[in-house]
Amino acid sequence: MNIGVFDSGFGGLTVFRALLDRIPNANYVYMGDTARLPYGAKSQATVARYAVSSARFLVDQGAEYLVIACNTASALALDAIRDSVPVPVLGVIETGANAAKASTKTGDVVVIATAATVESHAYAAACRERGLRAHEKACPLLVPLVEEGWVDHPVTEEVLQIYLSELLEEAQQAGLSPDTLVLGCTHYPLLRANIERKLPQNIGVIDSAEATASQVASALATSDGQAGQSSHRRFYATDSVQKFRRLGTRFLGQPIDSVELVDLGG
Amino acid sequence: MNIGVFDSGFGGLTVFRALLDRIPNANYVYMGDTARLPYGAKSQATVARYAVSSARFLVDQGAEYLVIACNTASALALDAIRDSVPVPVLGVIETGANAAKASTKTGDVVVIATAATVESHAYAAACRERGLRAHEKACPLLVPLVEEGWVDHPVTEEVLQIYLSELLEEAQQAGLSPDTLVLGCTHYPLLRANIERKLPQNIGVIDSAEATASQVASALATSDGQAGQSSHRRFYATDSVQKFRRLGTRFLGQPIDSVELVDLGG
Repeated sequence: MNIGVFDSGFGGLTVFRALLDRIPNANYVYMGDTARLPYGAKSQATVARYAVSSARFLVDQGAEYLVIACNTASALALDAIRDSVPVPVLGVIETGANAAKASTKTGDVVVIATAATVESHAYAAACRERGLRAHEKACPLLVPLVEEGWVDHPVTEEVLQIYLSELLEEAQQAGLSPDTLVLGCTHYPLLRANIERKLPQNIGVIDSAEATASQVASALATSDGQAGQSSHRRFYATDSVQKFRRLGTRFLGQPIDSVELVDLGG
Repeated sequence: MNIGVFDSGFGGLTVFRALLDRIPNANYVYMGDTARLPYGAKSQATVARYAVSSARFLVDQGAEYLVIACNTASALALDAIRDSVPVPVLGVIETGANAAKASTKTGDVVVIATAATVESHAYAAACRERGLRAHEKACPLLVPLVEEGWVDHPVTEEVLQIYLSELLEEAQQAGLSPDTLVLGCTHYPLLRANIERKLPQNIGVIDSAEATASQVASALATSDGQAGQSSHRRFYATDSVQKFRRLGTRFLGQPIDSVELVDLGG
């Protein structure tokens, strides 16, 4: 089985890492559309255009199963991607909502994500389809804080304190009693411990990277997906491969030896 | 005279605003390449490709003089732009360095900017050409803080305190006695008062938006540039025009009535 993983940049490597833990013997091809990141502040039409070209590229490289590890692309472009490639496509929004459904007892969920993901209300819609109520909050400073490397830093502590207390206050005002928080952005798993320390004990955290890997493993276990003996991993990026190696290593948690530059136009 | 102003997004509107103050009776066409922003973390080749297509678009719209209001594009793509259009091109790096040269008594300058601008060392080179010594520092959190609207906010105070004290310590370790700080990113003028409060009294701040407008006015005063009687202003963006109007109004300091969407590909 050849699994294609797509993200606008490096963040999807947290999903890739979780997939490697779960399905180590698959082949992987990863595409980071780093020339055109971040998707989080772009319109639906632009995100769909970029994501479809990246998804087609992965299928051209042999991907037989696509994981859309980018929350923004999953929120804004999943249908467009499914319409444009002939392989199964799984997005992190649906896997996050599935995991929230399995975790919550109150049926009330809170979600933190980028501005574009929140404005799409894709998590709220996915939760509603599963009988859950959700309150979403945009946390636009968290990605740059992670990319600055300020993971354990007083400023990040303060920003998280502000965002999380506003989130819980807004959820309460909306009449929700949340017991589950979904990390709706692939950068956020790097802040997970910090976030968990700031939450009341009754609120559990859903890491959509882990949730996605677990659901991909389940889906492929019922097919012939784990037949491969050796595992190949290829990385592609649309911008500086040096930067991809350097920053990507932090997200993947292991060295990235080789990245190929690809030009998708634009 | 028809002046074209180019930026990767909204920040260049601080330059546009300063131009309107100085040269109110010129015609203007503004291009924000919002689908492909931010340029600050992209490679030289990608930034040059994007900036050249935007500059050509402005000339196609009738621009007779181009102001590259994007620090990253000025740092990485000014020669490529000059090679590709038949009109005069002025970039904010050279105007900022000119203003620093006019301001400094010690000959030592500090510059804050995005990561890509700093990595290009374009300000240091421009200062060196003018007989100045410069120390540059990347401040990647300032743009998202401004875009979050946290201009007068304790977190921004704390981030500025960290960045500015590191900057001055680094400059001292490099043997510099800076008396001038250049705001090397078009978002930073919105933080100017806050930055000035945190600096020692002997350090003056150069706002490259104002410096650029002043130098464009001087250049055009010696040509036939101010002959126009009425002033037309057109705005183009490559992504959501709604967002351009909303965020742009904050940078321009006045309402933006009409923005046209343009597709440069990619």
